Amino acid sequence: MDYQSILEEIAKEVTPLFIDGKVADYIPALASVNKEQFAMSITLFDGTQYSVGRADTLFSIQSISKVFTFTLALKFYGSDMYKRIGHEPSGNPFNSLIQLEYENGKPRNPFINAGALNVSDVLVNYYKDDEKAYKEILNFIQAIADDETIGFNCEVAKSEMEHGFRNIALANLMKSFNNFDNDVNRVVDVYFRHCSIEMNTKMLSRAMLYLANHGKDPVSDKSYITPAQAKRINAIMLTCGHYDASGDFAYNVGLPGKSGVGGGIVAIVPKVMGISVWSPGLNAQGNSFVGTKALELFTDKTGLSIF
Amino acid sequence: MDYQSILEEIAKEVTPLFIDGKVADYIPALASVNKEQFAMSITLFDGTQYSVGRADTLFSIQSISKVFTFTLALKFYGSDMYKRIGHEPSGNPFNSLIQLEYENGKPRNPFINAGALNVSDVLVNYYKDDEKAYKEILNFIQAIADDETIGFNCEVAKSEMEHGFRNIALANLMKSFNNFDNDVNRVVDVYFRHCSIEMNTKMLSRAMLYLANHGKDPVSDKSYITPAQAKRINAIMLTCGHYDASGDFAYNVGLPGKSGVGGGIVAIVPKVMGISVWSPGLNAQGNSFVGTKALELFTDKTGLSIF
Amino acid sequence: MDYQSILEEIAKEVTPLFIDGKVADYIPALASVNKEQFAMSITLFDGTQYSVGRADTLFSIQSISKVFTFTLALKFYGSDMYKRIGHEPSGNPFNSLIQLEYENGKPRNPFINAGALNVSDVLVNYYKDDEKAYKEILNFIQAIADDETIGFNCEVAKSEMEHGFRNIALANLMKSFNNFDNDVNRVVDVYFRHCSIEMNTKMLSRAMLYLANHGKDPVSDKSYITPAQAKRINAIMLTCGHYDASGDFAYNVGLPGKSGVGGGIVAIVPKVMGISVWSPGLNAQGNSFVGTKALELFTDKTGLSIF
Amino acid sequence: MDYQSILEEIAKEVTPLFIDGKVADYIPALASVNKEQFAMSITLFDGTQYSVGRADTLFSIQSISKVFTFTLALKFYGSDMYKRIGHEPSGNPFNSLIQLEYENGKPRNPFINAGALNVSDVLVNYYKDDEKAYKEILNFIQAIADDETIGFNCEVAKSEMEHGFRNIALANLMKSFNNFDNDVNRVVDVYFRHCSIEMNTKMLSRAMLYLANHGKDPVSDKSYITPAQAKRINAIMLTCGHYDASGDFAYNVGLPGKSGVGGGIVAIVPKVMGISVWSPGLNAQGNSFVGTKALELFTDKTGLSIF
Repeated sequence: MDYQSILEEIAKEVTPLFIDGKVADYIPALASVNKEQFAMSITLFDGTQYSVGRADTLFSIQSISKVFTFTLALKFYGSDMYKRIGHEPSGNPFNSLIQLEYENGKPRNPFINAGALNVSDVLVNYYKDDEKAYKEILNFIQAIADDETIGFNCEVAKSEMEHGFRNIALANLMKSFNNFDNDVNRVVDVYFRHCSIEMNTKMLSRAMLYLANHGKDPVSDKSYITPAQAKRINAIMLTCGHYDASGDFAYNVGLPGKSGVGGGIVAIVPKVMGISVWSPGLNAQGNSFVGTKALELFTDKTGLSIF
Repeated sequence: MDYQSILEEIAKEVTPLFIDGKVADYIPALASVNKEQFAMSITLFDGTQYSVGRADTLFSIQSISKVFTFTLALKFYGSDMYKRIGHEPSGNPFNSLIQLEYENGKPRNPFINAGALNVSDVLVNYYKDDEKAYKEILNFIQAIADDETIGFNCEVAKSEMEHGFRNIALANLMKSFNNFDNDVNRVVDVYFRHCSIEMNTKMLSRAMLYLANHGKDPVSDKSYITPAQAKRINAIMLTCGHYDASGDFAYNVGLPGKSGVGGGIVAIVPKVMGISVWSPGLNAQGNSFVGTKALELFTDKTGLSIF
Repeated sequence: MDYQSILEEIAKEVTPLFIDGKVADYIPALASVNKEQFAMSITLFDGTQYSVGRADTLFSIQSISKVFTFTLALKFYGSDMYKRIGHEPSGNPFNSLIQLEYENGKPRNPFINAGALNVSDVLVNYYKDDEKAYKEILNFIQAIADDETIGFNCEVAKSEMEHGFRNIALANLMKSFNNFDNDVNRVVDVYFRHCSIEMNTKMLSRAMLYLANHGKDPVSDKSYITPAQAKRINAIMLTCGHYDASGDFAYNVGLPGKSGVGGGIVAIVPKVMGISVWSPGLNAQGNSFVGTKALELFTDKTGLSIF
Repeated sequence: MDYQSILEEIAKEVTPLFIDGKVADYIPALASVNKEQFAMSITLFDGTQYSVGRADTLFSIQSISKVFTFTLALKFYGSDMYKRIGHEPSGNPFNSLIQLEYENGKPRNPFINAGALNVSDVLVNYYKDDEKAYKEILNFIQAIADDETIGFNCEVAKSEMEHGFRNIALANLMKSFNNFDNDVNRVVDVYFRHCSIEMNTKMLSRAMLYLANHGKDPVSDKSYITPAQAKRINAIMLTCGHYDASGDFAYNVGLPGKSGVGGGIVAIVPKVMGISVWSPGLNAQGNSFVGTKALELFTDKTGLSIF
């Protein structure tokens, strides 16, 4: 397939749509991003990459990082993780305390905020130190993206911390149910740092290959998690990857994926490729408006939907 | 692939598991079913069928019928349906009024009870009569299953009606929000009748072919719905088809499917086949315990998971 | 105390306030009432009455009837009633299904709709017939008001029935939890009939005397309920009598009372008098705006608040 | 009335009831208290005191302190307080986050934990310093109790702080809704210190006199708050003073009051006296079991209920 032409077609078709999205405005560092930007990259199993748009521009990966931290937690603790965190979709907005209280402090899945905070707590347990936990998360992301230049944006992390009262509330609520082990502020700090990691679509599409290939990076041949663990992560991405628009994404795009409020989305075509797209304007559910459209056009044009 | 041998292997492997399930006991007609029964059938696009176990035994299809009634509603009203019913997963038990009230009488998806009742109401609107609505639902199911002998179990429908207070409450709540048009008792009667339709796994695996083939029955070449509508139904089956175990089913089985409390499950392998399995013992989430296991073994042995 | 002068002062002071309330508009029969009307009556233990305004004008007593039906249920079943209905305030709007589902079909108190429907169900149990139940409720109200002309407004009851889907939902939800015994439609019919009973402030202030006097009518010397039962009803009126403005009423008025959406309010001064006030315009919480103000002026001027 | 004899009768009658309560066990300092203890004191307007039992034994006043901090907040900010905190009963357990989230971070009343935390935040605003805020709260309590020896138990406060994750969650949730101004940890520290203040029933019955007397201490003749403010506090005590047993307390005791998990209860007879009772065993709703019974016997024997 001529992927390069397809990406260029998509870029042309989404240009008129910039107008509709709305950038995240809960912190100044995200609010100031120009929403008329677009990038899309795919990486095949042999490492070949195709890109269009600002594929070298770094952006805040935000909730996309939850896929990577959950991978590490699953790698270290296996199905014991499911004693702490569920794997079912949530019918409430992504940061709701209501469901968490109703279900006694057990988050429904690792991609809602409570679940991802719990995953960070688990990693602080494993590495016995918050500083080390963050570093190892970053090391893992550098490894799967095959790029040692990746780092986090300190200003974004600080801003998040200053507006993170609801996340701190979620962590304390879990702690009151004995489902959170470490000091809340230290864990939330790790969490906001990994959310503030900056990558571009080239890096992200490369980083997703291990999930497209049953847990093993097809380029480096390095195995990170078992095939069953990779399948679980893909299933959770499909059912819970896009907040309260996960059903829409499953329908419109038809691929396992995960979005972040920085405007990035990652997705995989099982056994074929990793994909990433970026455009900062968000739809009402908090997913990149143009990015979702671009992925929809991609599966339409290539027939690569899983359905 | 030697499907017959695979089905026979599966039948042998699930036999020791009969002990764990629990038949639905909310009405006598379902409670009296012997749980040590199993059947599994697949139907390919050329009509070839493979079966194992009691594939000729009729059982109550229950919530599986929601797939078929939603197909009709979508066929007649298209995306206008989404003004009345959402397509996102629900984080609460399948019959909860809480979420319905919180979201002003709009059910989250067509496979929770409120959504399916609303679909029945829509069909009574379309056919302008409840009696005719039920008959046309039955006609449609007979057509896609290519079997005119299919009918409903009157005793089961009557029992359901006598214990259906929560469903009647759901319908009245929607009515109070102006999201339900017809007389509640008439619509609920249609609903319980289509839930009480009896089929076997041969019929059900045949009936699912149109969803495996983008809306068109590959045997009769008859087109029922558009490819986009079929994709939407498949996406909803994957994200919402198994109550509060939809994420588990996506992971363990990896196919779009729908279960019923009668112990039946239907699923599709996109572009390949329709599948049905039956075993009356249910797991804690209300899905066939042995049936789910059998489907899991099937995708393990054939590699036909969508992930 | 010169009650007549006090009532006349109050009538003068509330006249400029007619503008602020809003009549109930969920059914035409209530929506068409002219909101610029006011009446207030008090009845002392010797039967002496003082009135001001349209104290002979009949209005729909609506939820005020819940005080009288609960009195009968308590009289017949005593504290067994508390197995079916609680006696604690509800923090949600008066007709919410959420709390009812969360608490397994047990209404929090007899003055929210679910509780009052349950009370009607109990009375249909006691009288073994819905027709008789309504008649005995009416007889009781005629007895305590000492007025045999009291009846219900058939048109209002019919209108209520046509818009009563939420109440029917509440009753069916209780039935699904086995906390409702009779046919829902018959009980709801009793409920809407007793809500549609019409009285004036003279009758209502007279009718409250038994609650001001420990369960015994001080004029006729007839004992209806025990002192403990009367105290319980007074306590529930104080904590739950005014929907989500019960705390405000306790503070501003400082008397046990009960309001209805027809614009009527009843209250008692323990050991001293029965009071009733009427003005059809409602505040945001569904209580008579001018009526509440008038009662507030009354306790201010007389010092008769219980605090 | 021979109050001393009445108190002695009560003490005798409640002795057999020690067995039923259960001391608070969420922190060791409270869990280790011997539950077979009882004290009761009343203070009349001329300062005369009557006591029975261990009326000199100090105990942790816990939530009783919420009455005093709310008094100060109301004194300084008047009805502006109701922009931040409501005055209606809550239908959920006293520390629920669900209602707080549902109502956008505005606590329903000042006696649930969220409300009292918010009051502490207001006092830190007023005094511009957390240390000073605590000291002024203590000063106020010493003044109304006319006893400068009163202080807090440092060990209890520390224990509370170590188990206070849910309170910290509540405060952070309010902060995320912009309804909390100061650093959460500093305010929670103030809150736990005033909850850990230790008093005996003599001191507490004395301290309540200003609420029995329209805001003015009848012994010292010092006016603390306006009559309207005192009435508001009394109304909130009656409707919300005893968690989810406020309706029961209104019925059984019939006096405005407030309980704490340390086993203390305060109450007033309007215009007559302040009362305090203590016994550490709690009922299922978290109120002193024997203490509630003692107050019930007191209003039975004296006829001093407000109903």
